[in-house]
Amino acid sequence: KEKKILTLAGDGIGPEVMEQALQVLNWVQENSNLSFIVEKDLVGGASIDANGVPLTSEVIAKAKAADAVLFGSVGGPKWDKVGFDKRPELGIIGLRKELGLFANLRSAIVFDALIGASTVKSEVIQGLDLMIVRESTGGVYFGEPRGIETLADGTRKGVNTEVYTSVEIERIARVAFELARQRKGQVCSVEKCNVMESGLLWKEVVTELHKKEYSDVKLSHMLADNCAMQLVRNPKQFDIILTGNLFGDILSDLAAMLTGSLGMLPSATLGARQDNGVIPALYEPIHGSAPDIAGQGKANPLAQILSLAMMLRYSFDQQAISEKVIKACEAVLNQGFRTPDIMSEGMKLVGTEEMGQAVLIKLKEN
Amino acid sequence: KEKKILTLAGDGIGPEVMEQALQVLNWVQENSNLSFIVEKDLVGGASIDANGVPLTSEVIAKAKAADAVLFGSVGGPKWDKVGFDKRPELGIIGLRKELGLFANLRSAIVFDALIGASTVKSEVIQGLDLMIVRESTGGVYFGEPRGIETLADGTRKGVNTEVYTSVEIERIARVAFELARQRKGQVCSVEKCNVMESGLLWKEVVTELHKKEYSDVKLSHMLADNCAMQLVRNPKQFDIILTGNLFGDILSDLAAMLTGSLGMLPSATLGARQDNGVIPALYEPIHGSAPDIAGQGKANPLAQILSLAMMLRYSFDQQAISEKVIKACEAVLNQGFRTPDIMSEGMKLVGTEEMGQAVLIKLKEN
Ligand SMILES: CC(C)[C@H](C(=O)O)[C@@H](O)C(=O)O
Ligand SMILES: CC(C)[C@H](C(=O)O)[C@@H](O)C(=O)O
Repeated sequence: KEKKILTLAGDGIGPEVMEQALQVLNWVQENSNLSFIVEKDLVGGASIDANGVPLTSEVIAKAKAADAVLFGSVGGPKWDKVGFDKRPELGIIGLRKELGLFANLRSAIVFDALIGASTVKSEVIQGLDLMIVRESTGGVYFGEPRGIETLADGTRKGVNTEVYTSVEIERIARVAFELARQRKGQVCSVEKCNVMESGLLWKEVVTELHKKEYSDVKLSHMLADNCAMQLVRNPKQFDIILTGNLFGDILSDLAAMLTGSLGMLPSATLGARQDNGVIPALYEPIHGSAPDIAGQGKANPLAQILSLAMMLRYSFDQQAISEKVIKACEAVLNQGFRTPDIMSEGMKLVGTEEMGQAVLIKLKEN
Repeated sequence: KEKKILTLAGDGIGPEVMEQALQVLNWVQENSNLSFIVEKDLVGGASIDANGVPLTSEVIAKAKAADAVLFGSVGGPKWDKVGFDKRPELGIIGLRKELGLFANLRSAIVFDALIGASTVKSEVIQGLDLMIVRESTGGVYFGEPRGIETLADGTRKGVNTEVYTSVEIERIARVAFELARQRKGQVCSVEKCNVMESGLLWKEVVTELHKKEYSDVKLSHMLADNCAMQLVRNPKQFDIILTGNLFGDILSDLAAMLTGSLGMLPSATLGARQDNGVIPALYEPIHGSAPDIAGQGKANPLAQILSLAMMLRYSFDQQAISEKVIKACEAVLNQGFRTPDIMSEGMKLVGTEEMGQAVLIKLKEN
């Protein structure tokens, strides 16, 4: 049966890196009995330019009908003035909400070949493999009331609301505990319960669920400020970090940058299994739209290609072929190919397309 | 005229490191024409144990009457179960609010002698000297509504509110711009305006104030997640980071840990000048109460001593003697003295008291 993939390349370097991922997808199709229907559409700034809004209801419908979404990235200075209710970021935030993609899984993995590209000492990060399980349909991203109000005296007030229900917390905690069982069996739950009641509830619900159903997993708790420190001090102490939307946004970017492999890191955002058996899923690189280098053919396509590999594995259960794609990416690194973001002395500097082609060549060789 | 200092050592390692700072204060008194009235009181868990609350109204009154507060640290697992409205952290949060200490200034400075203690490569942090100007009486720390509610179906909901008024934002931005003029003239304002309206207001107000009164300062804007990344990638790009209470909490700990000098970093929290000419001020180390090593005589007292040096300079205008204290701290490091937190090969391992005494000896020598 054919699988439906919706690709939304978005803005900045999104289209460039997506093109390379699609070539890999073609190769997969030609070299397996898998068959995909690939549809492309616009999101973010590109959708604003064409349709006046960052996410059309057509795109939402197509995403819901698809077996998986392969996403690029959104945003850029071009749309700085479009207004808060039209901003490109609503492309990704809206998709997470509309598709119920509450579990954003972000790995921070160090590729041995790239260890020198990190600003952190090699011994601190060598072999690092942690995962951030970030709640992604709740918290301050969606909480009401919100907005900017002008007061009687002409001054203004900006308000946002952090809200978490016990149902939302339990649901994401379950994902973290389940994943921990397939990994090193450790979950560190992160909040700011010494300041925020929502964090206190978070801690209580995670603790209760752990006690009732997951006492085989090792659970610890950490404050968000301390977690930022500990990630710098000794990131290898972590297996899974479980946290809310806003802390997860910051801590996952921090963790990604520690690895030196930022241009290499894919992510998956998953929802709950539907009646038709499909788990809604969106795959995207952790790096952003990088408007400063967009259109220059310099961007690293590997995170987008690895996002495709994650899709093959998690949405289509194609472990073997997913592995092949990952191995091909590693092989080009070991061969010395480097885009500017991961360049180091003695390596071969290449552009987006050359890097993508190198992966294809590896795939064809094996 | 005598200056009144209130010392609140608090919990964990607080009392141990405070003792060393007080010996330095004695030395200052004996070797200058300054004269201090030092009063000591309890805060945090220590105050809970004695008075049932983390911050008594007597302590608040004493703090208001003092020219400056020298603070240790609060919190620890002993008080994990006291309840949210009594938690030790209210000691420091309450003081900030009651005294109107809205400007929390946290430097991340690399001491050359300690550069090897960082997990970050030396070339990335050598000479690092950035300052985080963190708003500290607003945001989600104090926003209403807040709390945990049980819903009709028995599930629960945790709520906190991020609120910033244009008045609060302008006031803290002014501090950052003024400080920038005495430094490298750069302010990077950090929020999450692509997700939060309160961040959007933050950005607008900072931009307007800059345009009207501080256009000589170089202003940039950065999203909080990107800032976490940039701190890891290239912290030396920053002079002053201006941000809200919650982002400031996380980013300042991150920046502090980058330096490898965490046990060395003091901070100041300042209010608006009073009618009597006094600027309310509290000085405290950036490190916390470190309950795991409390009472063992292992803690590094230098951040507490350097907090005293900051007090001498900022509250009492004693630049020369403040410099002397700082130089004495650097001298003991250069001599090779190290508490466990900053220990490295070939150095001389010492405890809290030995380190404090070494500083005193240096002070007496010069
Ligand atoms: C683009 C932006 C809205 C988004 C977020 O804050 O979630 C991004 O930073 C991310 O982490 O996916
Ligand atoms: C103790 C705690 C409440 C406090 C805070 O979150 O502000 C601390 O982390 C700090 O940064 O001073």
